[in-house]
Amino acid sequence: MNSPLRGACIIGQSGGPSSVINSSAYGVIRTALDSEFITKVYGANHGIKGVLNDRLLVMDEEDPEELERLLYTPSSALGSCRYKIADPDADDTDYKRILEIFKKYDVRYFFYNGGNDSMDTCNKISKYMNKVGYDCRVIGVPKTIDNDLFGTDHCPGFASAAKYIASSVMEVSRDSQVYDVGMITIIECMGRHAGWLTAAAELANTMGDGPDLIYLPEVDFDMDKFIADVAKCYKEKGNCIIAVSEGIHYADGRFVSEAETSATDGFGHAQLGGLAAKLAAVCKEKIGAKVRGIELSLLQRCAAHCASGTDINESFLAGKTAVEAALEGATDVMVGFECNRENGYECKTKLFELSKVANFEQKLPVEWINEDKNGVTEEFVKYCLPLIQGETPMVKENGLPHFCNLKKVFAE
Amino acid sequence: MNSPLRGACIIGQSGGPSSVINSSAYGVIRTALDSEFITKVYGANHGIKGVLNDRLLVMDEEDPEELERLLYTPSSALGSCRYKIADPDADDTDYKRILEIFKKYDVRYFFYNGGNDSMDTCNKISKYMNKVGYDCRVIGVPKTIDNDLFGTDHCPGFASAAKYIASSVMEVSRDSQVYDVGMITIIECMGRHAGWLTAAAELANTMGDGPDLIYLPEVDFDMDKFIADVAKCYKEKGNCIIAVSEGIHYADGRFVSEAETSATDGFGHAQLGGLAAKLAAVCKEKIGAKVRGIELSLLQRCAAHCASGTDINESFLAGKTAVEAALEGATDVMVGFECNRENGYECKTKLFELSKVANFEQKLPVEWINEDKNGVTEEFVKYCLPLIQGETPMVKENGLPHFCNLKKVFAE
Repeated sequence: MNSPLRGACIIGQSGGPSSVINSSAYGVIRTALDSEFITKVYGANHGIKGVLNDRLLVMDEEDPEELERLLYTPSSALGSCRYKIADPDADDTDYKRILEIFKKYDVRYFFYNGGNDSMDTCNKISKYMNKVGYDCRVIGVPKTIDNDLFGTDHCPGFASAAKYIASSVMEVSRDSQVYDVGMITIIECMGRHAGWLTAAAELANTMGDGPDLIYLPEVDFDMDKFIADVAKCYKEKGNCIIAVSEGIHYADGRFVSEAETSATDGFGHAQLGGLAAKLAAVCKEKIGAKVRGIELSLLQRCAAHCASGTDINESFLAGKTAVEAALEGATDVMVGFECNRENGYECKTKLFELSKVANFEQKLPVEWINEDKNGVTEEFVKYCLPLIQGETPMVKENGLPHFCNLKKVFAE
Repeated sequence: MNSPLRGACIIGQSGGPSSVINSSAYGVIRTALDSEFITKVYGANHGIKGVLNDRLLVMDEEDPEELERLLYTPSSALGSCRYKIADPDADDTDYKRILEIFKKYDVRYFFYNGGNDSMDTCNKISKYMNKVGYDCRVIGVPKTIDNDLFGTDHCPGFASAAKYIASSVMEVSRDSQVYDVGMITIIECMGRHAGWLTAAAELANTMGDGPDLIYLPEVDFDMDKFIADVAKCYKEKGNCIIAVSEGIHYADGRFVSEAETSATDGFGHAQLGGLAAKLAAVCKEKIGAKVRGIELSLLQRCAAHCASGTDINESFLAGKTAVEAALEGATDVMVGFECNRENGYECKTKLFELSKVANFEQKLPVEWINEDKNGVTEEFVKYCLPLIQGETPMVKENGLPHFCNLKKVFAE
């Protein structure tokens, strides 16, 4: 264990936001502000681009009570980016600039809050600083509703989206069964390559209002099988609720959302309305039922009003642990979770090597997909249910969320 | 005032459901169960069709604690229908059958929980029973997220959808501003003929996270003006959030969702994805920005997890008042609200003649639409904000809503 460095820290956020990415940022900011070793806490405005552009927000200038609202404020409060940093061996321009900024502000701690790509950025910066001999501790703070980061039991952000999806599926399920004429309802969830979020619809079945069928990107999609599955369910129950991942694809790799189908030829363009509407049109044509396609869209990743209390607490913990670990000498790692579900649910933080995390997508285990490839097993429910427990501490005013509004004072 | 009749009552639900239609039903059921004059409480399974088909649920058989969950259970727990009853002068078959069922179960009170069409059904049944001299009190209990019933200050169900819309717009607004590259986000709300729900997006502006532009069906839509509005906003702010009603239409009456536009020719079919996706495509083509279309779809009418406490209480009150008024002799009326917003907010129930309520759509007053026809005034906010106050008493289990599950015991 190394002794703490004295110097400033930067926290940046990157990639698509979530309901709780700010809880993690707050975990970093609060812990860093409270540290006697960290002299200044900067927020990079729009992730690594904020560093490159010398746009650093001074967190020390923010009101502590307002900062605390970050716990339940969705989206990336510091601003995000989707900037892919070059390989330093190919082009080290960005790295030189980052080093320049780090030196300018005496930055000895760099925390990066994001998903796969962000962990890659983190890893590259860490390696570069080590190579040039600049003493700086670099730690990744995970975030992704997609839940696809390697090593960690689960990712901050996933559970809140999962809770929103399960709650919404329950509500839509009730809504779509009021008439004595049945309906086929298709609910499209995010997850381009991993089916975690769509699988979360299954949690609704623990309360008796869940989906009948679930289709994930881990399995090749077969339109004829899909139509047969839906037709069978609709015939038996007079109703059918289906959760589909935006990333379902045919065996040849084409996304169903982008490929043409007989039912949507000519107007099934992926840009317009997307997969749920398309599959609904197919069901209408082939099965002749009343249909409804619902795309949960951005709502599922920003519905802070329905966030998981467990997710908020764990997200904060991930940020807090990142600072504590960095103070103790850790670098080039990502904070993740190790969980035990044997007697209740226990979640501990654990550090993972960034090089092992970066650029690897953790998919839903195929053993958790049922034999018919149209649902998930009880194992998934056991895994996921503990994560969505507890409610948000969100403060409301006038019946609406009172989100954090930062002053955003830029460093000179 | 007439003395109370001794006999059974029927409560039926009709039309599209809402987050709180069951609160009203519970107001009726609880009050009727507690009345010494009402001998039996029946729920019509699927509205008036349940009466016609002799499918009556015995509410007396339900567990009182489970019934109480109706307060926060979305959708029509008794089942709904969209059955349009004939004019009794043209065809009195249905009325004869209803009378037969009323006599069979000694029904002396009929409560119908729904929107415009349901009030029309109520009115016709009331007139018929009066004509044939069958002593039965018929009362309408309003419900419609569209808020378009005549007379009443507002309709049960509207405020909860409004609260969900405003909350979701706030969250999406935060989400769509994380990158330093701007985005045009179009959020489509329900309301085929009246703009109340879409206008509710404006409430988000009271918290600083609202829409920049709002388009309502009360005003003819002009695509060129729309593009100019959005382009101006996007140029000034680098971002633009737009709320549109599904019912916006051109001056010639064609719905924008159904009419072809240059940007969507060939694949802009209304069935697929709808208006938000279509307008997003137009903005992408004409303004060249990153775009996102979000359709709130069924979510806005069933999001009980985000219901307004005020709406839940008032919905219950409407049902309770219906029974109390009927016991006191009222018939052929709808329960509505009369509100005072001078010193705080005060809401009282008031009875409205059914014949004046039926088949009339109450639109958003044009004075509450701004001069540019792309927003609403402060008057609307003053009107709407009190309605979304307070939270749902929803009980959760395992992190998810525990909705009411009725036993559904049918009358012999």
